[in-house]
Amino acid sequence: MLDEVRAIIERHRVLESLAERQRTDKRELLTQMQKRENLVELRRRLAGVHPADLASMIARLPPDERLLVVHQLAARDVGLTLVELDPEIRAAVIDDLDRQELEAALAELDADDLAYLADSVPAALIDQASASLDGAGRSWVADTSSHASGTVGRLMRQDVVALRGELTVAQAIDALRQGGELPPQTDRLFVTDARHMLRGAVPLATILRAAPDAPLASIASTEVAAFRPGDSAAEAAKAFERYDWVSAPMVDDLGKLIGRITIDAVVDYLRAASDQSALARAGLRGAEDLFAPVSESVRNRWPWLAFNLLTAFAASRVIGAFEETITRVVALAALMPIVASIGGNTGNQTVALVIRALALDQLRETHGRLAAKEAAVGALNGVTWGMIVGAVALVLYHSLALSLVMATAIFLNLIVAALAGVAVPLLLRRTGRDPAQGASVLLTFVTDAMGFLLFLGLATAFLR
Amino acid sequence: MLDEVRAIIERHRVLESLAERQRTDKRELLTQMQKRENLVELRRRLAGVHPADLASMIARLPPDERLLVVHQLAARDVGLTLVELDPEIRAAVIDDLDRQELEAALAELDADDLAYLADSVPAALIDQASASLDGAGRSWVADTSSHASGTVGRLMRQDVVALRGELTVAQAIDALRQGGELPPQTDRLFVTDARHMLRGAVPLATILRAAPDAPLASIASTEVAAFRPGDSAAEAAKAFERYDWVSAPMVDDLGKLIGRITIDAVVDYLRAASDQSALARAGLRGAEDLFAPVSESVRNRWPWLAFNLLTAFAASRVIGAFEETITRVVALAALMPIVASIGGNTGNQTVALVIRALALDQLRETHGRLAAKEAAVGALNGVTWGMIVGAVALVLYHSLALSLVMATAIFLNLIVAALAGVAVPLLLRRTGRDPAQGASVLLTFVTDAMGFLLFLGLATAFLR
Repeated sequence: MLDEVRAIIERHRVLESLAERQRTDKRELLTQMQKRENLVELRRRLAGVHPADLASMIARLPPDERLLVVHQLAARDVGLTLVELDPEIRAAVIDDLDRQELEAALAELDADDLAYLADSVPAALIDQASASLDGAGRSWVADTSSHASGTVGRLMRQDVVALRGELTVAQAIDALRQGGELPPQTDRLFVTDARHMLRGAVPLATILRAAPDAPLASIASTEVAAFRPGDSAAEAAKAFERYDWVSAPMVDDLGKLIGRITIDAVVDYLRAASDQSALARAGLRGAEDLFAPVSESVRNRWPWLAFNLLTAFAASRVIGAFEETITRVVALAALMPIVASIGGNTGNQTVALVIRALALDQLRETHGRLAAKEAAVGALNGVTWGMIVGAVALVLYHSLALSLVMATAIFLNLIVAALAGVAVPLLLRRTGRDPAQGASVLLTFVTDAMGFLLFLGLATAFLR
Repeated sequence: MLDEVRAIIERHRVLESLAERQRTDKRELLTQMQKRENLVELRRRLAGVHPADLASMIARLPPDERLLVVHQLAARDVGLTLVELDPEIRAAVIDDLDRQELEAALAELDADDLAYLADSVPAALIDQASASLDGAGRSWVADTSSHASGTVGRLMRQDVVALRGELTVAQAIDALRQGGELPPQTDRLFVTDARHMLRGAVPLATILRAAPDAPLASIASTEVAAFRPGDSAAEAAKAFERYDWVSAPMVDDLGKLIGRITIDAVVDYLRAASDQSALARAGLRGAEDLFAPVSESVRNRWPWLAFNLLTAFAASRVIGAFEETITRVVALAALMPIVASIGGNTGNQTVALVIRALALDQLRETHGRLAAKEAAVGALNGVTWGMIVGAVALVLYHSLALSLVMATAIFLNLIVAALAGVAVPLLLRRTGRDPAQGASVLLTFVTDAMGFLLFLGLATAFLR
């Protein structure tokens, strides 16, 4: 469909440039009419498309074409599409919309969607849009958006279906008939008491198959895991993954049912978290709109570049300390990056495994054991690759002493790399940081600096 | 709970070593009795624990303790726990079980679970276990496990609920009552005709609220997206994410309903894919059991180490070509890794963004535009960091010429890095490879080799 839309946009451009050249021409009116017809066709083509598909299409268009598409959408579709867009694209589109358009789009959204957008839209606009909601909706928007990111509170929805336990199955079904459509991802209903306390849950499948006169309380399971708004979103996501839930109830501190989390929000959360972690590993602060201005991209990238440069200078000073040795045996200059590089590689393999184990909670009292094992892997790799590299160096430079220094430095640096690969993520985590962010830069610093130190130090001692 | 289980295991060990020392002692019998009692307590403690929780606990235990836990489980729990384990842990546990135990565990599993385990268990055992299934179950196990990995066929389940469209809602509910429990993640029923062709879908919520005498066909939506076994699992997962599905039907080439995919399988698939990609980026072939023997770990890690070493030697030859210049200006040896390192960093930032854009299908005809933008970001970063590094080099080495060479080399290498960062993942993808796997090693090779070439080449030309 993207191709079709782009074809219409292309036609629009041609007509536009035609109209431009015809400013003083009598054919101008005709071109303007064709232009309008063309846009009507675009509008017709876009009507009824799922907001998630609109969002994906918009993300792939350059900024000016994005706006052309958004302008052909009904206000409600604009609102729903904003909800579906990735944050960095959403920010760009919101920047380009004018205030009236944004107001109209927000006015079409429910409390859950408004709360979801609260981070991306000026607070005044959110307030204005939620003014048209009922009291519960207004306070929902205010409450939900106040929870810290990374908590379940940010994922929860208001659209929970709760019924009193005294109702019979037949009465419950009647109540559902009167209540309008059930919200999506409703796999079970929650049972509450007179004070709105969560008392149990009944799957829709159970209601469907139950005797009409059975009271809900008698067919509800009473052991229902519930979340509170301050709970960790990562932990909640793990529970959804582990127990294959579709929805789970949210309660307040007293046990009152206040909302629910659904699997679609969990999937979005997991996707965002794994995206974020992949970008963080590469030293980026966040995702980037591919069509964002260069200045924004530079801002996103410089902090880790700066940090990396600092560590590179530190490693460079290690080399600087051995200038005299290098002048004597200039082959060292060519060989030393190999020692550093293979150390960085093995170390980063260990880092990746440790970060995964931390994410899966597999590391508790086993740090010592893991370090010993990784050191053994490093030593075994070190003997193997040390001998291979030593042999190649011997062929290239015809010096047995140089070749032995190279082999020994690689052997030792791979052990250093293995130990640092275990230690760096664990230390980052102990200081409350995300081990994925920066572990690689720190590890590479250790293996570079130690690689240069070991190789050039051994060379200074044994080569003459 | 892990702590409790480990305490019981600890007690078991103490009693065991006691029994060992008492070989010839009269108290042996007493100790043996205590040992048995202790294991009974462990068994009692483990009964009723969710298989997913058992799996997570087992993954955190060292191999001998894993077996002790598995031996206290009922055969059915062993089977279900095997299904829940991560592949690398599952392989280790299966290796440790004897054939009878494994047979007993597999005998308890249904066709879907057996098909899921087909990759991890010897084919003979799967055949033996599926012999006790009905004909449909047997051919399901054989068919499903024959699909290529990465296809929807590997995710599909047999437990789909299908009803004929002529049935009224009341008749359908009766049929469901007689059919036993609905399978989990059943959010909608599928409507088929006399030839089992998929004709539509009805959400449970709709059935619950419909008039009892309405025919299913009249309340079913007929536009149902269905998958075929050969479809890409990644594309199916995208559709689940986009449209917030809980389940989707699977059909054969004729349109006959053959099974379904459910969101829990999609979530597991997404988790495995993002894990795999994080490990691949670090140059690992796959996940590792933290307690696996050292030899297995070495096997998992050596291919990318070998490739990295090749590229490191190639970069080293670039330096070797400038030995004379380095002898003349030894400061070059200390500074050259900085040029290479900052190039590798900016390049890897671009690689991460391009890989993400490829995964989100955001890159179609926009390669040129993206390359131009990244080159601009690289140039801007290059001017900034080149000047900063040049200034620091001036302070350290008091040579304006050296400082200008350094600044120019960084400027040029950052542009090279940006272009390579766009090109490398695109080329890997065009050759049918996973851009995450190896992009970083290739990129670093380009930025290292070009960094050394630019810096030492400029130095040779302008420094004397």
